[in-house]
Amino acid sequence: MSQARTYQSVDQYVQENEPRLLEELKEFLRIPSISTLPDHNADTRRAGEYAAAKLREAGLENVELIETPRHPLVYADWMHAPGKPTVLCYGHFDVQPPDPLELWETPPFEPTERNGNLYARGSADDKGQMYSHIKAFEALRAVHGTLPVNIKVLLEGEEEVGGLSVAEYVAKNPEKLKADVALVSDTEMYEPGLPTLNVGLRGLVYMEIEARGPMRDLHSGLYGGAAPNAVFGLIELLSKAKDADGHIQIPGIYDKVEPPSAAEKDSWTRLPFDEAEYLKNEVGSTALTGEPGYSVFERTWARPTLEVHGIAGGFTGAGAKTVIPAKAVAKVSIRLVPKQEPEEVVAAVKAFVAANTPKGIVCEVRVLSAGPGLMVNTDHPAIQVAAQAFSNIFGKPTVFTRSGGSIPIVGDFANHLGIPTILMGFGLPDDGLHSPNEKYNIRNYFDGIRTIAHFFEQYGQ
Amino acid sequence: MSQARTYQSVDQYVQENEPRLLEELKEFLRIPSISTLPDHNADTRRAGEYAAAKLREAGLENVELIETPRHPLVYADWMHAPGKPTVLCYGHFDVQPPDPLELWETPPFEPTERNGNLYARGSADDKGQMYSHIKAFEALRAVHGTLPVNIKVLLEGEEEVGGLSVAEYVAKNPEKLKADVALVSDTEMYEPGLPTLNVGLRGLVYMEIEARGPMRDLHSGLYGGAAPNAVFGLIELLSKAKDADGHIQIPGIYDKVEPPSAAEKDSWTRLPFDEAEYLKNEVGSTALTGEPGYSVFERTWARPTLEVHGIAGGFTGAGAKTVIPAKAVAKVSIRLVPKQEPEEVVAAVKAFVAANTPKGIVCEVRVLSAGPGLMVNTDHPAIQVAAQAFSNIFGKPTVFTRSGGSIPIVGDFANHLGIPTILMGFGLPDDGLHSPNEKYNIRNYFDGIRTIAHFFEQYGQ
Repeated sequence: MSQARTYQSVDQYVQENEPRLLEELKEFLRIPSISTLPDHNADTRRAGEYAAAKLREAGLENVELIETPRHPLVYADWMHAPGKPTVLCYGHFDVQPPDPLELWETPPFEPTERNGNLYARGSADDKGQMYSHIKAFEALRAVHGTLPVNIKVLLEGEEEVGGLSVAEYVAKNPEKLKADVALVSDTEMYEPGLPTLNVGLRGLVYMEIEARGPMRDLHSGLYGGAAPNAVFGLIELLSKAKDADGHIQIPGIYDKVEPPSAAEKDSWTRLPFDEAEYLKNEVGSTALTGEPGYSVFERTWARPTLEVHGIAGGFTGAGAKTVIPAKAVAKVSIRLVPKQEPEEVVAAVKAFVAANTPKGIVCEVRVLSAGPGLMVNTDHPAIQVAAQAFSNIFGKPTVFTRSGGSIPIVGDFANHLGIPTILMGFGLPDDGLHSPNEKYNIRNYFDGIRTIAHFFEQYGQ
Repeated sequence: MSQARTYQSVDQYVQENEPRLLEELKEFLRIPSISTLPDHNADTRRAGEYAAAKLREAGLENVELIETPRHPLVYADWMHAPGKPTVLCYGHFDVQPPDPLELWETPPFEPTERNGNLYARGSADDKGQMYSHIKAFEALRAVHGTLPVNIKVLLEGEEEVGGLSVAEYVAKNPEKLKADVALVSDTEMYEPGLPTLNVGLRGLVYMEIEARGPMRDLHSGLYGGAAPNAVFGLIELLSKAKDADGHIQIPGIYDKVEPPSAAEKDSWTRLPFDEAEYLKNEVGSTALTGEPGYSVFERTWARPTLEVHGIAGGFTGAGAKTVIPAKAVAKVSIRLVPKQEPEEVVAAVKAFVAANTPKGIVCEVRVLSAGPGLMVNTDHPAIQVAAQAFSNIFGKPTVFTRSGGSIPIVGDFANHLGIPTILMGFGLPDDGLHSPNEKYNIRNYFDGIRTIAHFFEQYGQ
């Protein structure tokens, strides 16, 4: 007679295993898998190895680390449900850098429970969410002894640095990755308790723009008035890229931008939204910004935007140094909406920089990544089943929203595998992705496991 | 009978002691007295102690380190020439930070001889020049057994950080510092071999401008289009402070700017100057900048200028991070010409920032230092003697120029002691002050000692 404990349902399984499920996630979050920092390459690999080991424990087969020029991919599958659909589950085990470190209340890689949340870099983006998939497999096998659908899993460690390796892998392995639909949990619910499927994403072109002026830093007293200043040159250039209303001034940038349909725009007006509360508790500045005549939803979901993520040049230590800096660099991105072509946007930026580089300055544009935005068809059967499963667990009708963020892999799945992606996320708007004190709601972690397992059960019928 | 060697002249003394004079300067330059970096406070003090010890060795009396809230001052005197004028000799023993370190061919604090120059941070600005004074005292006493004029010496260790302590000391001790003229060697010769007295200096208002936007760094995908960006806000603000022609756009800034006299302007047209060579070998950019209709001399000597010395905000590490930064800081200065009041300029900047701070951004202006520009009367007898002494040593008529740099102490001497300052410098235009690979011409170091001693001899007659 088997020693195995028998569970009546996934719900029961999750409930009785909560402490262990949380402890495993904490262990995963303790790995500082910061993909952009070469010093953390070993950690990023270790996070992939951790996920691979847990996939094996959950009964997935053909688990492998796939080497790439940068960070390894993880693949696994379970193909023993003949006649049932195949779901390709994607997630990423890399995280953003935690700086500014001094703003974290508890260390970013020492997961800490406070107020029903788990605070750690990567807790919501995306380790906590992708780990729900693995634990859903485990729960289904514990309850049913099998999985209700065929599963393929593809995890990457470069999502926060442009996802080049996974994009190449998807492009080159369409047969291996063949599936009916992809499932990604890397988005948020519109508000706590409100099941939300994301059906639109913005794309992203991320660049470094470097300005060079004099051959070396010069004394500003002796040369001020005759020598070009690389920092000021970069300031002049960037200031022309966007007007005070947030309207991008790069010629051609809006050529392919299409407004959302009247129906979609109308549905957004029915989403609960308190702009004053959003300003106070989410943004925390003296005013919101952006293009007049567009709602916050339109501005952040359906309009391209330009941001300077960081700038550095000249003397930035304590005190005073009177130099005319020789060099300055800015990190600049443009978020794209569906139909905008990343290559065309890059070309437009380069032409703009060439046309607006100030006198005496030489500028260089380096493209770090470029991916398009996209829309998902809400009539697809898998999307419909996912919406129903999400509603069943959370007890409310599922809403369809867009996100202003970018998940380039969704475009790769559409282009190379010809499949739609279900963006079923369990994050919350105040999770602080990419910010200090990132957190993931612990209840949502458990309910995410239940929802994903329930979706597989429903989709297998 | 005395063991002392007898010298016929200062020239002979300097010539026969060159190796030791150079070695002592090297020892002085090895002290990394970077006044702006608190980690180097002990080094800055050590440089002051070194100078004090050498003043004692040269026979100066009443040598003391005067404590201040930041870096000590050094005072010394020799008052045994009754009926002769008194010269107040000023210099500074602090230096600028050496960064960017990677651009130095040899370490900044390991003085290295190359091509007749001594390469080290502070070699020209100002340790090498101020040390000439001390060695001139030594040479005069070795040759004559006495000094031809009365001498007071005041050295500071805060010149590169605004010179607050020495300014206060001068204001509070006019009797102790009473003199007929001040002598400062912290400027440059117009070209190698051409004796040059500087008769005009620009003033300096140095500020930090900090911009704050959202309460924390935000995800640029989720919030881009609605949240203000502190880096971009600062870029927008600063871009409005100066137009593409270098004309400052801050209202009122030119109200008290007076053009140089026709005679002075005319004399500048006769200075040897090759703009193409200046662009290529001194500035090293693709073009010169600055206000059209003004010569390079006018732009750098007689016009106020605005520079951004450094800027930092957001993510500036390797790779990509998609944040909307919460904070950004720039170091900004305005160079002033005579008649412009520093307080009025500060007020104008603050009003400009208040009027031009972008929506959603909060800006703060912190003033780090503020000092006026000034002109020296070329008819003063001491200036005339200094010009003649300089000519005698270098064999060419002395030219009168201005400098675009700032030496606030000159204004303090004029205001509180009522005396003019002789700006008799031995630097060269390519010395690279404040830049990597700063150097001082070794021949000029020795000739500087000779010129200063010769000036004292002439002025004592």
